[in-house]
Amino acid sequence: MRPGEHMSERESVSEFRVRYAETDQMGVVYHANYLVWCEIGRTDFIRSRGMSYAEMELGGILLAVTDVTLRIHASARYDDVVRVATRLAAVRSRAVEFAYEITRVGDGARIASATTMLVSINPQGRPVAMDPGVRALLEAGSVVG
Amino acid sequence: MRPGEHMSERESVSEFRVRYAETDQMGVVYHANYLVWCEIGRTDFIRSRGMSYAEMELGGILLAVTDVTLRIHASARYDDVVRVATRLAAVRSRAVEFAYEITRVGDGARIASATTMLVSINPQGRPVAMDPGVRALLEAGSVVG
Amino acid sequence: MRPGEHMSERESVSEFRVRYAETDQMGVVYHANYLVWCEIGRTDFIRSRGMSYAEMELGGILLAVTDVTLRIHASARYDDVVRVATRLAAVRSRAVEFAYEITRVGDGARIASATTMLVSINPQGRPVAMDPGVRALLEAGSVVG
Amino acid sequence: MRPGEHMSERESVSEFRVRYAETDQMGVVYHANYLVWCEIGRTDFIRSRGMSYAEMELGGILLAVTDVTLRIHASARYDDVVRVATRLAAVRSRAVEFAYEITRVGDGARIASATTMLVSINPQGRPVAMDPGVRALLEAGSVVG
Repeated sequence: MRPGEHMSERESVSEFRVRYAETDQMGVVYHANYLVWCEIGRTDFIRSRGMSYAEMELGGILLAVTDVTLRIHASARYDDVVRVATRLAAVRSRAVEFAYEITRVGDGARIASATTMLVSINPQGRPVAMDPGVRALLEAGSVVG
Repeated sequence: MRPGEHMSERESVSEFRVRYAETDQMGVVYHANYLVWCEIGRTDFIRSRGMSYAEMELGGILLAVTDVTLRIHASARYDDVVRVATRLAAVRSRAVEFAYEITRVGDGARIASATTMLVSINPQGRPVAMDPGVRALLEAGSVVG
Repeated sequence: MRPGEHMSERESVSEFRVRYAETDQMGVVYHANYLVWCEIGRTDFIRSRGMSYAEMELGGILLAVTDVTLRIHASARYDDVVRVATRLAAVRSRAVEFAYEITRVGDGARIASATTMLVSINPQGRPVAMDPGVRALLEAGSVVG
Repeated sequence: MRPGEHMSERESVSEFRVRYAETDQMGVVYHANYLVWCEIGRTDFIRSRGMSYAEMELGGILLAVTDVTLRIHASARYDDVVRVATRLAAVRSRAVEFAYEITRVGDGARIASATTMLVSINPQGRPVAMDPGVRALLEAGSVVG
C-alpha cells in the first residue's frame, strides 16, 4: 500500500475558490474565514466517513467548537483555489479533535494550520456521549493500517 | 410639536463603527454587509416600540426577509461611524416593510438606501398572521401624529 | 443548435454546498449570503467569457455594486447543493447588469432571484468607461444567436 | 490609585449587541465571529492609546494576524450585550500580542478567551519593525504602575 493511499484513508480533501466576500482591505483573506474553511473541511471529512453532519444534527447530535488554534503562514487571495486537508486528531467519548492544513493549489504554498476541539452536545446544549456508531465511523480512518 | 419629535416617533436610529471584517479588497465595505446593518436597524426599531425581536422569536413569531432593494450611493469605510435610520413603510396582516437610510456620521454622506419586506412565519416556516398586539405596536409610530 | 446550447452561451452555472457559517438561528441561510452567492456567479460568468475578474482588478478596472434587487422564494439550508445561474442583463459603457436565479439542485426548488447593477470604476473610485475589449467579451454571450 | 484604575489603564472595554447575522442554526453565535469581536476589541484598544488603526494603515503600518488561540466557555446568543476586554500581552519589535476576555453583560458569564499575535508588515506584506512611537504608545498601559 502506498503512502498516498494511507493518506487518503486518513484525510479528506476539500477544494474551492476564495470568494471576494472573504477578502478584507488588506487585500487578502480576512483571518476569521480560515475557521469557516476548517468547518467545510470537517463537514467533508464526516461525509467521507459515510455520514452527514446535517443528518447527525437532525438525529440530535451537535458538535460545538470549544477550542481553536490557528497559525497563518501566508495569505490566501481572492480567486485562489485553496485546499483544506482535514484529519482526525483525537476522539474521546464526548469530544473530537480535528487538524487542518490549508494550502494554495497553484503553488502548493502553506496558507494556514489549525486545530479545533468539538464537544458533543444535545439540542439543549448539554454535553453528551457520542453514539458509539458515530465514534466508530469517525475513528475508522484515524489509524494508519 | 417639532419636526425632530415627529421624526423620533417614526424612525429609530442606530449608530456603530464599521468593522475591519466588513471591508473587502476594494478598500470599502462589502455590499452584502449593508443588509446586515439593515437588520440591526430593524432590531432597534422593534425595540424602540417596546418589543424585542428576540422575544418575538421565542414566542413563535419569526419575520423572514422575502424582498430586498438596495441602492448604494457612496462607500462606507473601515472605522467610519455610520447611522442607520429605520422606519416602517407598511404593515399588513402577514407582512411588514421597512425602509432604511444609511449615512456616515462624520460628513453626513448618504451611503445607501434600502427596503426589506418580511413575512410573518411560524417556527415551521408557514406564513401566519401577526399577533394584533405586535401589529399595533409596530404601527404605533408609523403615522405622523 | 439545441436550446441548451444557447443557454450555455448566455448563462454560466455555479454549484456549491451551503456552509454551516451561512445559516442563522432560523435554521436557514441568512439572507445577505444570497448576495455573496451572486458574486460567485458573477465571477464564474466573467471567467466563462475568458476573463478573470481578479485580473481585471489588477488591470485597474473594478466593478462596484450600486443596485440590488433580491426576492427570496424559499429557504436554502445547510448542506444543500445550490446552483446559481448567472446571465448578463445589460451592458452599458460604464455599467453592467447581471441577473441570477438560485435553485436547490436536489429538488429544483427556486430559492431566490436577484439582479445587481455594477458600475465600472478606477482604483480611486471614479466611474470610468469599461475597456471596449472587456465589454465585447461580456456581451459575447448576451444575445441568442 | 485604585485597582480599577490600573485596570482601565491596561485594558480597553468594548460593548455591543449580538447581531442576528452572527448566529447559526445551532441557535448561538457562530464561533468564527468571536475573532471578529476580538478585532473590534483590538481597534478600540489602539484607539484608547490615542492612535487609530485606520490611520496606522494609511501611514503604511499594517498588523496582520499570524496566530490565534480561542477557547469558548459558553455560547453568546442573539441580542445579548457582550463585552470584550482587551489587553496587551506582549510587544516586540515586529509583533504584538493581544489577549481578550469576552463576557455577557447581563449575567457576567464568561463566553470566550482568546489571544492573537499580529506581525507588523508594510503594504507589500513584508515584516517591518513598528515605529518606535507606535510601540511606545501601545506599551504605555501594559505595565501596572
